[in-house]
Amino acid sequence: MIRIGILGYGNLGKGVECAVKQNPDMELAAVFTRRDPAAVKILTQSACVAHADEAPAWKEKIDVMILCGGSATDLPAQTPAFAQLFNVVDSFDTHAKIPEHFAKVDAAAQESGKVAVISAGWDPGMFSLNRMLSGAILPEGRDYTFWGKGVSQGHSDAIRRIPGVKDARQYTIPVDSALEAVRSGSNPELTTRQKHLRDCYVVLEDGADASRVEQAIVTMPNYFADYDTTVHFISEEELKRDHSGIPHGGFVIRTGCTGWEGENKHVIEYSLKLDSNPEFTSSVIVACARAAFRMAQEGQKGCKTVFDIPPAYLSAMSGEELRRLLL
Amino acid sequence: MIRIGILGYGNLGKGVECAVKQNPDMELAAVFTRRDPAAVKILTQSACVAHADEAPAWKEKIDVMILCGGSATDLPAQTPAFAQLFNVVDSFDTHAKIPEHFAKVDAAAQESGKVAVISAGWDPGMFSLNRMLSGAILPEGRDYTFWGKGVSQGHSDAIRRIPGVKDARQYTIPVDSALEAVRSGSNPELTTRQKHLRDCYVVLEDGADASRVEQAIVTMPNYFADYDTTVHFISEEELKRDHSGIPHGGFVIRTGCTGWEGENKHVIEYSLKLDSNPEFTSSVIVACARAAFRMAQEGQKGCKTVFDIPPAYLSAMSGEELRRLLL
Repeated sequence: MIRIGILGYGNLGKGVECAVKQNPDMELAAVFTRRDPAAVKILTQSACVAHADEAPAWKEKIDVMILCGGSATDLPAQTPAFAQLFNVVDSFDTHAKIPEHFAKVDAAAQESGKVAVISAGWDPGMFSLNRMLSGAILPEGRDYTFWGKGVSQGHSDAIRRIPGVKDARQYTIPVDSALEAVRSGSNPELTTRQKHLRDCYVVLEDGADASRVEQAIVTMPNYFADYDTTVHFISEEELKRDHSGIPHGGFVIRTGCTGWEGENKHVIEYSLKLDSNPEFTSSVIVACARAAFRMAQEGQKGCKTVFDIPPAYLSAMSGEELRRLLL
Repeated sequence: MIRIGILGYGNLGKGVECAVKQNPDMELAAVFTRRDPAAVKILTQSACVAHADEAPAWKEKIDVMILCGGSATDLPAQTPAFAQLFNVVDSFDTHAKIPEHFAKVDAAAQESGKVAVISAGWDPGMFSLNRMLSGAILPEGRDYTFWGKGVSQGHSDAIRRIPGVKDARQYTIPVDSALEAVRSGSNPELTTRQKHLRDCYVVLEDGADASRVEQAIVTMPNYFADYDTTVHFISEEELKRDHSGIPHGGFVIRTGCTGWEGENKHVIEYSLKLDSNPEFTSSVIVACARAAFRMAQEGQKGCKTVFDIPPAYLSAMSGEELRRLLL
């Protein structure tokens, strides 16, 4: 059994707990929290809840520690720190800062002799893997990533900060005609506006001015100004009833050519349609935890990403079973 | 530069030659043939053509030998034999015999200290990898593979063997309603007939009886009897004009659930739409040749499949570039 620890019990931590239950070669040993452990109720009866400060005492009782904090402030500090004690997996998703994060985590894990998998999830994660694989197969080509339909937490938060807004939910939606143009192999140049729409569901405070809120949304720089944005005002009950899920997904498409003169075209498409963004991310993370455990058992160390993991290490099946049943 | 050899110069061998040209870190050293080398004209001016029997003399001049023979009789003998001398890649695609082929190739490559990648291509190959990855991420789920629209060489040949048939081309076509049922997450049980259609374009010999030929096709056991099959009689010119390509493709779809009670559904879909089946297969093989070279340089040996290759080894980019640009 691979003994799993979870640091941080929000949506992602809960998702990891559920994913561990689906994998018979794993067991949840403990959840670590910065809150009062007595106030944190988890689902797994056999697992402990402990304060994050107690984690070092679990060094010999946990095979892989899964870090479920946020990329803005938690993981840049936590992943290097915990990689000094544990094999770890995180879902660091600030794409521009991955090289810097990698360097810091690698230094810590090289020194401790542990394996640290960073940026596990679907983007970064499975989408990255598909961009990489498709590019290696079709070097003369071009890839496109579309996100959605799905809830963007960052954009929902940006709307909630506007005076007069009580609550909000924002969906990112890929534009069908752009998807079709890409699939056709015409290698279109697409602007931000041509690739995605933004659809906003907003609950107003009593007495707020709807048209001022709408203007504030659609003109907001970085978040909405470069997109075709639609704002729907709804009641708090409607928001709760119709928009409480956290769906997401998207498409990675590469088109490219082969042949002596590039005469044949090919389209490789990978897509996800997810009812729960955090639970799917957690499922990828848990498969990466298995790989981290196996790489560590082999004597590997340092920081790894999905690009470095032999795919078979993610699966509970043996090499012989994989070849017989899935190859 | 990675020095590539090609054994066998049919559609696949030509595709490998074209793919090597697209990869700036590789060069084609020589093509080996069982025909008279003087009669084989290749496209790469800088490369040699030699008889297959001369291959052992190239042991120090070739980094990876790509075996482009057929799975029925060529590869079962060639891959173990050449793995005694070279790092090799093949596209062995008789799914049921992969374990046996793996064992023989592994024994040879373990002894010689070479790396042998078998079953590279798209199915087996990229489709296998996607079945494996999706299953590792969503252990509670089910996967479905659909092929087409594409030309099946085996089924086309079966039609050509019917008396009265001059030439023929058979397309395998996935049934749209079955694809939709799978994507819905309803986990349908699908019969052979419900998953794929077979569409046949047939040129008759002068004086042949069309209705007898049609009956012989649609009732042919194993090949057509279990499918809804449509037969179109066309002229030789039409066959040449409209059906000379070798397109193929297909879909690997896994649906699964997450959550404490499996309450959230997810769909992972990978699809290919290929103008040229052999050229796309060749492009995967060439990426695997890069990986074989790198694994051999690291001191690895033995038989490998796509399940064993760290994805980054397939790409010409460095780990640092991959993390910065694609993660």
